[in-house]
Amino acid sequence: MNESGDTRYELYYWNGIQGRGEFVRLAFEEAGVPYVDVARLPPKKGGGDIAIQRLLEGEGPGLLPFAPPLLKVGELVLAQVANILFFVGPRLGLAPESEAARAEVNQLQLTIADFIAEVHDTHHPIAVGKRYETQKVAARRRAAFFVEHRLPRFLSYFEDVLARNTRARGRFLVGNSLTYADLSMFQTLTGLEYAFPTAFGLLAPSLPRLSALRARVEARPKIAAYLGSEQRLPNNESDIFRRYPELDAAPARRDS
Amino acid sequence: MNESGDTRYELYYWNGIQGRGEFVRLAFEEAGVPYVDVARLPPKKGGGDIAIQRLLEGEGPGLLPFAPPLLKVGELVLAQVANILFFVGPRLGLAPESEAARAEVNQLQLTIADFIAEVHDTHHPIAVGKRYETQKVAARRRAAFFVEHRLPRFLSYFEDVLARNTRARGRFLVGNSLTYADLSMFQTLTGLEYAFPTAFGLLAPSLPRLSALRARVEARPKIAAYLGSEQRLPNNESDIFRRYPELDAAPARRDS
Repeated sequence: MNESGDTRYELYYWNGIQGRGEFVRLAFEEAGVPYVDVARLPPKKGGGDIAIQRLLEGEGPGLLPFAPPLLKVGELVLAQVANILFFVGPRLGLAPESEAARAEVNQLQLTIADFIAEVHDTHHPIAVGKRYETQKVAARRRAAFFVEHRLPRFLSYFEDVLARNTRARGRFLVGNSLTYADLSMFQTLTGLEYAFPTAFGLLAPSLPRLSALRARVEARPKIAAYLGSEQRLPNNESDIFRRYPELDAAPARRDS
Repeated sequence: MNESGDTRYELYYWNGIQGRGEFVRLAFEEAGVPYVDVARLPPKKGGGDIAIQRLLEGEGPGLLPFAPPLLKVGELVLAQVANILFFVGPRLGLAPESEAARAEVNQLQLTIADFIAEVHDTHHPIAVGKRYETQKVAARRRAAFFVEHRLPRFLSYFEDVLARNTRARGRFLVGNSLTYADLSMFQTLTGLEYAFPTAFGLLAPSLPRLSALRARVEARPKIAAYLGSEQRLPNNESDIFRRYPELDAAPARRDS
Protein backbone atom coordinates (compact mmCIF):
# COMPACT_ATOMS: atom_id res chain seq x y z
CA MET A 1 0.00 0.00 0.00
CA ASN A 2 1.46 3.30 -1.02
CA GLU A 3 -0.94 6.23 -1.00
CA SER A 4 1.74 8.87 -0.84
CA GLY A 5 2.00 9.86 -4.46
CA ASP A 6 0.18 13.17 -4.18
CA THR A 7 0.91 13.98 -0.56
CA ARG A 8 3.41 16.62 0.53
CA TYR A 9 5.28 15.56 3.66
CA GLU A 10 7.11 18.21 5.68
CA LEU A 11 9.41 17.09 8.50
CA TYR A 12 10.29 19.63 11.18
CA TYR A 13 13.26 18.72 13.35
CA TRP A 14 16.16 20.61 14.91
CA ASN A 15 18.97 21.01 12.43
CA GLY A 16 22.41 19.63 13.26
CA ILE A 17 21.51 16.34 14.94
CA GLN A 18 20.03 13.00 13.91
CA GLY A 19 17.97 12.93 17.09
CA ARG A 20 14.46 11.58 17.12
CA GLY A 21 13.92 13.01 13.64
CA GLU A 22 16.16 10.33 12.21
CA PHE A 23 13.62 7.56 12.89
CA VAL A 24 11.22 9.39 10.61
CA ARG A 25 13.86 10.19 7.99
CA LEU A 26 14.90 6.53 7.70
CA ALA A 27 11.32 5.49 6.92
CA PHE A 28 10.99 8.02 4.12
CA GLU A 29 14.44 7.20 2.77
CA GLU A 30 13.74 3.45 2.67
CA ALA A 31 10.38 4.06 0.97
CA GLY A 32 11.90 6.45 -1.55
CA VAL A 33 9.08 8.88 -0.83
CA PRO A 34 10.07 12.57 -1.02
CA TYR A 35 9.83 14.75 2.08
CA VAL A 36 10.94 18.26 2.86
CA ASP A 37 13.35 18.52 5.80
CA VAL A 38 12.10 22.01 6.57
CA ALA A 39 14.48 23.22 9.28
CA ARG A 40 17.45 22.39 7.07
CA LEU A 41 16.32 24.84 4.42
CA PRO A 42 17.68 28.37 4.77
CA PRO A 43 15.43 30.75 6.76
CA LYS A 44 14.90 32.76 3.57
CA LYS A 45 13.17 29.72 2.11
CA GLY A 46 11.01 29.13 5.16
CA GLY A 47 13.55 26.95 6.95
CA GLY A 48 15.63 27.19 10.10
CA ASP A 49 14.62 26.47 13.67
CA ILE A 50 12.18 29.39 13.48
CA ALA A 51 9.96 27.24 11.26
CA ILE A 52 9.73 24.66 14.06
CA GLN A 53 9.13 27.36 16.65
CA ARG A 54 6.14 28.67 14.72
CA LEU A 55 4.45 25.26 14.81
CA LEU A 56 5.21 24.85 18.52
CA GLU A 57 3.61 28.23 19.13
CA GLY A 58 0.42 27.06 17.48
CA GLU A 59 0.62 28.67 14.06
CA GLY A 60 -0.12 25.39 12.32
CA PRO A 61 -3.46 23.63 11.90
CA GLY A 62 -4.86 20.99 14.22
CA LEU A 63 -3.59 19.80 17.56
CA LEU A 64 -0.91 21.89 19.25
CA PRO A 65 2.34 19.85 19.34
CA PHE A 66 4.56 19.57 22.41
CA ALA A 67 7.95 18.88 20.82
CA PRO A 68 9.62 17.89 17.53
CA PRO A 69 9.88 15.85 15.43
CA LEU A 70 6.75 17.13 13.71
CA LEU A 71 5.37 15.90 10.41
CA LYS A 72 3.02 18.17 8.56
CA VAL A 73 0.68 16.23 6.27
CA GLY A 74 -2.05 18.40 4.82
CA GLU A 75 -4.03 19.81 7.73
CA LEU A 76 -2.40 17.48 10.25
CA VAL A 77 0.65 18.33 12.34
CA LEU A 78 1.72 15.01 13.81
CA ALA A 79 4.13 14.75 16.74
CA GLN A 80 5.70 11.88 18.68
CA VAL A 81 7.88 9.53 16.63
CA ALA A 82 5.76 6.43 17.23
CA ASN A 83 2.61 8.32 16.30
CA ILE A 84 4.16 9.72 13.12
CA LEU A 85 5.42 6.29 12.08
CA PHE A 86 2.12 4.59 12.88
CA PHE A 87 0.41 7.09 10.58
CA VAL A 88 2.86 7.06 7.67
CA GLY A 89 3.99 3.43 7.99
CA PRO A 90 1.17 1.96 5.88
CA ARG A 91 1.47 4.81 3.36
CA LEU A 92 5.20 4.09 2.97
CA GLY A 93 4.75 0.32 2.66
CA LEU A 94 6.53 -0.19 6.00
CA ALA A 95 3.70 -1.57 8.16
CA PRO A 96 1.84 -4.88 8.12
CA GLU A 97 -1.76 -5.11 6.95
CA SER A 98 -3.55 -6.43 10.01
CA GLU A 99 -4.56 -4.38 13.04
CA ALA A 100 -2.96 -6.96 15.34
CA ALA A 101 0.40 -6.88 13.58
CA ARG A 102 0.34 -3.08 13.45
CA ALA A 103 -0.18 -3.06 17.20
CA GLU A 104 2.88 -5.28 17.57
CA VAL A 105 5.02 -2.94 15.48
CA ASN A 106 3.71 0.03 17.47
CA GLN A 107 4.49 -1.78 20.72
CA LEU A 108 8.08 -2.34 19.66
CA GLN A 109 8.43 1.26 18.50
CA LEU A 110 7.24 2.46 21.90
CA THR A 111 9.71 0.18 23.64
CA ILE A 112 12.47 1.61 21.45
CA ALA A 113 11.26 5.09 22.48
CA ASP A 114 11.60 4.16 26.15
CA PHE A 115 15.07 2.77 25.46
CA ILE A 116 16.11 5.98 23.68
CA ALA A 117 14.82 8.10 26.58
CA GLU A 118 16.99 6.10 28.96
CA VAL A 119 20.00 6.56 26.68
CA HIS A 120 19.37 10.32 26.69
CA ASP A 121 19.16 10.45 30.45
CA THR A 122 22.56 8.80 30.87
CA HIS A 123 24.02 12.21 30.01
CA HIS A 124 21.11 14.27 31.38
CA PRO A 125 19.98 12.57 34.60
CA ILE A 126 19.12 15.81 36.43
CA ALA A 127 17.94 18.50 34.04
CA VAL A 128 17.14 18.19 30.35
CA GLY A 129 17.55 21.96 30.04
CA LYS A 130 21.05 22.22 31.50
CA ARG A 131 24.45 21.31 30.07
CA TYR A 132 26.03 17.91 30.57
CA GLU A 133 28.89 19.52 32.45
CA THR A 134 26.48 20.56 35.24
CA GLN A 135 25.42 16.95 35.90
CA LYS A 136 28.49 14.83 35.21
CA VAL A 137 28.66 13.14 38.61
CA ALA A 138 25.06 11.97 38.46
CA ALA A 139 25.56 11.04 34.80
CA ARG A 140 28.37 8.67 35.71
CA ARG A 141 26.16 6.93 38.24
CA ARG A 142 23.18 6.71 35.92
CA ALA A 143 25.31 5.51 33.01
CA ALA A 144 26.96 2.83 35.16
CA PHE A 145 23.55 1.41 36.05
CA PHE A 146 22.40 1.72 32.45
CA VAL A 147 25.42 -0.07 31.06
CA GLU A 148 25.29 -2.84 33.62
CA HIS A 149 21.53 -3.46 33.77
CA ARG A 150 19.36 -1.58 31.31
CA LEU A 151 21.45 -1.88 28.15
CA PRO A 152 21.71 -5.70 28.33
CA ARG A 153 18.06 -5.98 29.38
CA PHE A 154 16.73 -3.99 26.43
CA LEU A 155 19.09 -5.58 23.90
CA SER A 156 18.43 -9.14 25.03
CA TYR A 157 14.71 -8.40 24.86
CA PHE A 158 14.91 -7.35 21.21
CA GLU A 159 17.17 -10.33 20.45
CA ASP A 160 14.51 -12.59 21.98
CA VAL A 161 11.80 -10.93 19.88
CA LEU A 162 13.77 -11.80 16.74
CA ALA A 163 14.38 -15.35 17.98
CA ARG A 164 10.65 -15.87 18.51
CA ASN A 165 9.76 -14.67 15.02
CA THR A 166 10.43 -18.10 13.62
CA ARG A 167 8.14 -17.61 10.64
CA ALA A 168 10.59 -15.01 9.33
CA ARG A 169 13.60 -16.96 10.69
CA GLY A 170 14.43 -13.94 12.82
CA ARG A 171 14.99 -11.65 9.88
CA PHE A 172 12.37 -9.07 10.92
CA LEU A 173 10.98 -7.99 14.28
CA VAL A 174 7.35 -8.50 13.22
CA GLY A 175 5.94 -10.62 10.44
CA ASN A 176 7.73 -11.54 7.27
CA SER A 177 8.73 -8.20 5.82
CA LEU A 178 10.52 -5.00 6.73
CA THR A 179 8.67 -2.54 8.97
CA TYR A 180 9.58 0.84 10.35
CA ALA A 181 10.43 -0.85 13.66
CA ASP A 182 13.31 -2.67 11.93
CA LEU A 183 14.64 0.66 10.65
CA SER A 184 14.36 2.19 14.12
CA MET A 185 16.16 -0.80 15.61
CA PHE A 186 18.99 -0.24 13.14
CA GLN A 187 19.20 3.42 14.15
CA THR A 188 19.26 2.48 17.82
CA LEU A 189 22.04 -0.06 17.35
CA THR A 190 24.26 2.29 15.36
CA GLY A 191 23.72 4.98 17.98
CA LEU A 192 24.61 2.63 20.81
CA GLU A 193 27.78 1.55 19.06
CA TYR A 194 28.75 5.20 18.70
CA ALA A 195 27.93 6.18 22.29
CA PHE A 196 29.02 3.07 24.15
CA PRO A 197 31.69 1.38 21.99
CA THR A 198 33.09 -0.68 24.86
CA ALA A 199 29.86 -1.74 26.53
CA PHE A 200 28.08 -2.37 23.25
CA GLY A 201 31.07 -4.17 21.79
CA LEU A 202 31.11 -6.58 24.71
CA LEU A 203 27.42 -7.37 24.31
CA ALA A 204 27.34 -7.62 20.52
CA PRO A 205 28.60 -11.24 20.29
CA SER A 206 25.58 -12.35 22.32
CA LEU A 207 23.23 -10.60 19.88
CA PRO A 208 23.66 -12.43 16.57
CA ARG A 209 20.14 -11.75 15.27
CA LEU A 210 20.24 -8.04 16.09
CA SER A 211 23.68 -7.75 14.51
CA ALA A 212 22.42 -9.46 11.37
CA LEU A 213 19.30 -7.26 11.25
CA ARG A 214 21.44 -4.19 11.54
CA ALA A 215 23.73 -5.32 8.71
CA ARG A 216 20.80 -6.17 6.46
CA VAL A 217 19.15 -2.78 6.98
CA GLU A 218 22.46 -1.01 6.41
CA ALA A 219 22.90 -2.85 3.10
CA ARG A 220 19.48 -2.01 1.68
CA PRO A 221 20.19 0.08 -1.41
CA LYS A 222 18.21 3.18 -0.47
CA ILE A 223 19.41 3.15 3.13
CA ALA A 224 23.02 2.62 2.01
CA ALA A 225 22.73 5.53 -0.42
CA TYR A 226 21.25 7.75 2.28
CA LEU A 227 23.90 6.82 4.84
CA GLY A 228 26.59 7.68 2.31
CA SER A 229 25.05 11.04 1.45
CA GLU A 230 25.48 14.49 2.98
CA GLN A 231 21.89 14.33 4.15
CA ARG A 232 22.90 11.86 6.86
CA LEU A 233 24.26 13.98 9.67
CA PRO A 234 27.23 12.66 11.62
CA ASN A 235 26.89 11.62 15.27
CA ASN A 236 27.84 14.39 17.67
CA GLU A 237 27.72 15.43 21.31
CA SER A 238 24.59 17.56 20.98
CA ASP A 239 22.58 14.48 20.08
CA ILE A 240 20.84 11.71 22.00
CA PHE A 241 23.71 9.29 21.47
CA ARG A 242 26.89 10.97 22.76
CA ARG A 243 30.37 9.52 22.97
CA TYR A 244 31.52 10.45 26.46
CA PRO A 245 34.18 7.86 27.36
CA GLU A 246 33.56 8.38 31.07
CA LEU A 247 30.00 7.02 30.62
CA ASP A 248 31.05 3.95 28.65
CA ALA A 249 32.09 1.36 31.19
CA ALA A 250 32.50 -2.33 30.55
CA PRO A 251 29.57 -4.34 31.92
CA ALA A 252 30.53 -5.61 35.34
CA ARG A 253 29.64 -9.23 34.64
CA ARG A 254 30.65 -9.44 31.03
CA ASP A 255 31.71 -13.07 31.18
CA SER A 256 28.56 -14.37 32.86
CA MET B 1 -18.79 1.62 18.50
CA ASN B 2 -18.61 -1.11 21.09
CA GLU B 3 -17.44 -4.47 19.81
CA SER B 4 -16.48 -5.82 23.18
CA GLY B 5 -19.52 -7.85 24.10
CA ASP B 6 -17.98 -11.25 23.48
CA THR B 7 -14.36 -10.43 24.15
CA ARG B 8 -12.51 -11.46 27.32
CA TYR B 9 -10.06 -8.79 28.44
CA GLU B 10 -7.32 -9.73 30.89
CA LEU B 11 -5.20 -6.97 32.43
CA TYR B 12 -1.85 -7.93 33.91
CA TYR B 13 -0.31 -5.33 36.19
CA TRP B 14 1.67 -5.40 39.44
CA ASN B 15 -0.63 -5.62 42.41
CA GLY B 16 -0.54 -2.92 45.09
CA ILE B 17 -0.08 0.20 42.96
CA GLN B 18 -2.13 2.22 40.51
CA GLY B 19 0.93 2.65 38.30
CA ARG B 20 0.65 2.59 34.55
CA GLY B 21 -2.07 -0.04 34.80
CA GLU B 22 -4.47 2.59 36.10
CA PHE B 23 -4.67 4.33 32.71
CA VAL B 24 -6.04 1.09 31.28
CA ARG B 25 -8.35 0.43 34.24
CA LEU B 26 -9.96 3.86 33.95
CA ALA B 27 -10.88 3.24 30.32
CA PHE B 28 -12.59 -0.06 31.11
CA GLU B 29 -14.32 1.41 34.17
CA GLU B 30 -15.69 4.39 32.22
CA ALA B 31 -16.89 2.09 29.44
CA GLY B 32 -18.47 -0.34 31.87
CA VAL B 33 -16.80 -3.19 30.02
CA PRO B 34 -15.74 -6.12 32.24
CA TYR B 35 -12.06 -7.02 32.53
CA VAL B 36 -10.14 -9.40 34.72
CA ASP B 37 -7.42 -7.76 36.83
CA VAL B 38 -5.41 -10.96 36.81
CA ALA B 39 -2.57 -10.24 39.23
CA ARG B 40 -5.08 -9.22 41.89
CA LEU B 41 -6.63 -12.67 41.89
CA PRO B 42 -5.14 -15.13 44.36
CA PRO B 43 -2.33 -17.29 42.94
CA LYS B 44 -4.57 -20.34 43.41
CA LYS B 45 -6.92 -18.83 40.86
CA GLY B 46 -4.17 -18.01 38.38
CA GLY B 47 -3.39 -14.61 39.85
CA GLY B 48 -0.46 -12.99 41.61
CA ASP B 49 2.66 -11.47 40.14
CA ILE B 50 3.64 -14.93 38.89
CA ALA B 51 0.94 -14.62 36.24
CA ILE B 52 2.65 -11.49 34.90
CA GLN B 53 6.04 -13.15 35.08
CA ARG B 54 4.85 -16.00 32.90
CA LEU B 55 3.82 -13.62 30.13
CA LEU B 56 7.10 -11.70 30.41
CA GLU B 57 8.94 -14.99 30.03
CA GLY B 58 7.14 -15.67 26.79
CA GLU B 59 4.51 -18.21 27.80
CA GLY B 60 1.75 -16.22 26.10
CA PRO B 61 0.92 -16.02 22.41
CA GLY B 62 2.24 -13.42 19.99
CA LEU B 63 4.88 -10.77 20.50
CA LEU B 64 7.05 -11.04 23.60
CA PRO B 65 6.25 -8.10 25.92
CA PHE B 66 8.91 -6.01 27.65
CA ALA B 67 7.01 -4.76 30.70
CA PRO B 68 3.50 -4.44 32.18
CA PRO B 69 0.80 -3.31 31.88
CA LEU B 70 -0.19 -6.12 29.53
CA LEU B 71 -3.62 -6.69 28.09
CA LYS B 72 -4.45 -10.14 26.81
CA VAL B 73 -7.15 -10.08 24.15
CA GLY B 74 -7.61 -13.43 22.48
CA GLU B 75 -4.29 -14.34 20.88
CA LEU B 76 -2.84 -10.87 21.39
CA VAL B 77 -0.73 -9.81 24.37
CA LEU B 78 -0.60 -6.03 24.10
CA ALA B 79 1.92 -3.95 26.02
CA GLN B 80 2.65 -0.23 26.34
CA VAL B 81 -0.20 1.88 27.74
CA ALA B 82 -0.61 4.03 24.63
CA ASN B 83 -0.66 0.95 22.41
CA ILE B 84 -3.22 -0.82 24.59
CA LEU B 85 -5.47 2.25 24.67
CA PHE B 86 -5.15 2.83 20.93
CA PHE B 87 -6.33 -0.74 20.38
CA VAL B 88 -9.18 -0.86 22.89
CA GLY B 89 -10.23 2.81 22.67
CA PRO B 90 -12.57 2.36 19.70
CA ARG B 91 -13.95 -0.88 21.17
CA LEU B 92 -14.75 0.92 24.43
CA GLY B 93 -16.33 3.94 22.74
CA LEU B 94 -13.48 6.15 23.94
CA ALA B 95 -11.80 7.09 20.65
CA PRO B 96 -12.92 9.31 17.77
CA GLU B 97 -13.93 7.83 14.43
CA SER B 98 -11.44 9.41 12.05
CA GLU B 99 -7.83 8.33 11.58
CA ALA B 100 -6.67 11.94 11.99
CA ALA B 101 -8.46 12.44 15.30
CA ARG B 102 -7.24 9.07 16.55
CA ALA B 103 -3.68 10.17 15.78
CA GLU B 104 -4.29 13.31 17.83
CA VAL B 105 -5.53 11.30 20.81
CA ASN B 106 -2.55 8.96 20.47
CA GLN B 107 -0.18 11.94 20.30
CA LEU B 108 -1.56 13.33 23.55
CA GLN B 109 -1.40 9.92 25.22
CA LEU B 110 2.27 9.63 24.25
CA THR B 111 2.97 13.10 25.62
CA ILE B 112 1.29 12.07 28.88
CA ALA B 113 3.53 8.97 28.86
CA ASP B 114 6.60 11.18 28.56
CA PHE B 115 5.32 13.37 31.38
CA ILE B 116 4.72 10.33 33.61
CA ALA B 117 8.23 9.04 32.90
CA GLU B 118 9.65 12.38 34.05
CA VAL B 119 7.52 12.24 37.20
CA HIS B 120 8.89 8.76 37.92
CA ASP B 121 12.45 9.87 37.47
CA THR B 122 12.09 12.66 40.04
CA HIS B 123 12.42 9.90 42.65
CA HIS B 124 14.56 7.57 40.55
CA PRO B 125 17.02 9.76 38.64
CA ILE B 126 19.93 7.30 38.82
CA ALA B 127 18.72 3.69 38.83
CA VAL B 128 15.20 2.38 38.27
CA GLY B 129 16.21 -0.85 39.98
CA LYS B 130 17.49 0.68 43.22
CA ARG B 131 15.66 2.15 46.20
CA TYR B 132 14.84 5.85 46.47
CA GLU B 133 17.04 6.13 49.53
CA THR B 134 20.12 5.33 47.43
CA GLN B 135 19.51 8.32 45.14
CA LYS B 136 17.98 11.01 47.33
CA VAL B 137 20.54 13.71 46.63
CA ALA B 138 20.18 13.41 42.87
CA ALA B 139 16.41 13.13 43.31
CA ARG B 140 16.28 16.50 45.05
CA ARG B 141 18.15 18.10 42.18
CA ARG B 142 16.04 16.44 39.51
CA ALA B 143 12.79 17.22 41.31
CA ALA B 144 13.78 20.88 41.74
CA PHE B 145 14.28 21.20 37.99
CA PHE B 146 11.10 19.28 37.31
CA VAL B 147 8.99 21.42 39.62
CA GLU B 148 10.43 24.68 38.31
CA HIS B 149 10.54 23.93 34.60
CA ARG B 150 9.01 20.68 33.42
CA LEU B 151 5.84 20.59 35.52
CA PRO B 152 4.64 24.06 34.41
CA ARG B 153 5.72 23.39 30.84
CA PHE B 154 3.74 20.16 30.51
CA LEU B 155 0.70 21.49 32.36
CA SER B 156 0.53 24.75 30.43
CA TYR B 157 0.83 22.73 27.22
CA PHE B 158 -2.22 20.62 28.07
CA GLU B 159 -4.10 23.74 29.20
CA ASP B 160 -3.33 25.30 25.82
CA VAL B 161 -4.56 22.17 24.03
CA LEU B 162 -7.91 22.53 25.81
CA ALA B 163 -8.04 26.26 25.06
CA ARG B 164 -7.53 25.58 21.36
CA ASN B 165 -10.31 23.01 21.20
CA THR B 166 -12.89 25.76 20.75
CA ARG B 167 -15.36 23.46 19.01
CA ALA B 168 -15.80 21.63 22.32
CA ARG B 169 -15.37 24.85 24.32
CA GLY B 170 -12.36 23.27 26.00
CA ARG B 171 -14.32 20.45 27.55
CA PHE B 172 -12.31 17.66 25.91
CA LEU B 173 -8.72 17.39 24.72
CA VAL B 174 -9.70 16.17 21.25
CA GLY B 175 -12.99 16.56 19.41
CA ASN B 176 -16.37 16.90 21.01
CA SER B 177 -16.60 13.84 23.24
CA LEU B 178 -14.70 12.00 25.94
CA THR B 179 -11.64 9.99 24.89
CA TYR B 180 -9.20 7.86 26.81
CA ALA B 181 -6.76 10.78 26.73
CA ASP B 182 -9.16 12.77 28.93
CA LEU B 183 -9.25 9.91 31.43
CA SER B 184 -5.45 9.69 31.42
CA MET B 185 -5.20 13.44 31.96
CA PHE B 186 -7.47 13.09 34.99
CA GLN B 187 -5.25 10.33 36.38
CA THR B 188 -2.15 12.45 35.81
CA LEU B 189 -3.62 15.48 37.57
CA THR B 190 -4.77 13.52 40.62
CA GLY B 191 -1.34 11.91 40.83
CA LEU B 192 0.43 15.25 40.61
CA GLU B 193 -1.74 16.70 43.35
CA TYR B 194 -0.84 13.73 45.54
CA ALA B 195 2.88 13.84 44.84
CA PHE B 196 3.47 17.59 44.62
CA PRO B 197 0.73 19.23 46.72
CA THR B 198 2.61 22.52 47.07
CA ALA B 199 3.96 22.87 43.56
CA PHE B 200 0.77 21.66 41.93
CA GLY B 201 -1.38 23.77 44.22
CA LEU B 202 0.50 26.89 43.19
CA LEU B 203 0.04 26.13 39.51
CA ALA B 204 -3.60 25.00 39.65
CA PRO B 205 -5.15 28.50 39.57
CA SER B 206 -3.49 29.12 36.20
CA LEU B 207 -5.02 25.91 34.81
CA PRO B 208 -8.78 26.51 34.85
CA ARG B 209 -9.58 24.24 31.91
CA LEU B 210 -7.53 21.34 33.22
CA SER B 211 -9.07 21.73 36.66
CA ALA B 212 -12.54 21.68 35.14
CA LEU B 213 -11.73 18.65 33.00
CA ARG B 214 -10.49 16.82 36.05
CA ALA B 215 -13.64 17.64 38.02
CA ARG B 216 -15.90 16.55 35.17
CA VAL B 217 -14.13 13.20 34.76
CA GLU B 218 -14.20 12.64 38.53
CA ALA B 219 -17.97 13.24 38.54
CA ARG B 220 -18.83 10.83 35.76
CA PRO B 221 -21.03 8.17 37.40
CA LYS B 222 -18.96 5.11 36.55
CA ILE B 223 -15.66 6.82 37.36
CA ALA B 224 -17.06 8.16 40.65
CA ALA B 225 -18.28 4.69 41.57
CA TYR B 226 -14.91 3.18 40.76
CA LEU B 227 -12.98 5.83 42.70
CA GLY B 228 -15.16 5.13 45.72
CA SER B 229 -14.72 1.38 45.52
CA GLU B 230 -12.09 -0.90 46.99
CA GLN B 231 -10.88 -1.65 43.49
CA ARG B 232 -9.27 1.81 43.35
CA LEU B 233 -5.96 1.40 45.13
CA PRO B 234 -4.74 4.28 47.29
CA ASN B 235 -1.69 6.31 46.30
CA ASN B 236 1.47 5.07 47.98
CA GLU B 237 5.24 5.39 47.94
CA SER B 238 5.84 2.32 45.77
CA ASP B 239 4.03 3.97 42.88
CA ILE B 240 4.94 6.44 40.14
CA PHE B 241 3.43 9.37 42.04
CA ARG B 242 5.07 9.47 45.48
CA ARG B 243 4.58 12.02 48.22
CA TYR B 244 8.09 12.85 49.33
CA PRO B 245 7.88 16.35 50.85
CA GLU B 246 11.56 16.97 50.15
CA LEU B 247 10.85 16.74 46.40
CA ASP B 248 7.87 19.09 46.45
CA ALA B 249 9.29 22.58 46.33
CA ALA B 250 7.37 25.71 45.49
CA PRO B 251 8.15 26.90 41.96
CA ALA B 252 10.93 29.46 42.23
CA ARG B 253 9.15 32.09 40.16
CA ARG B 254 5.61 31.47 41.25
CA ASP B 255 4.57 35.10 41.08
CA SER B 256 5.86 35.70 37.58
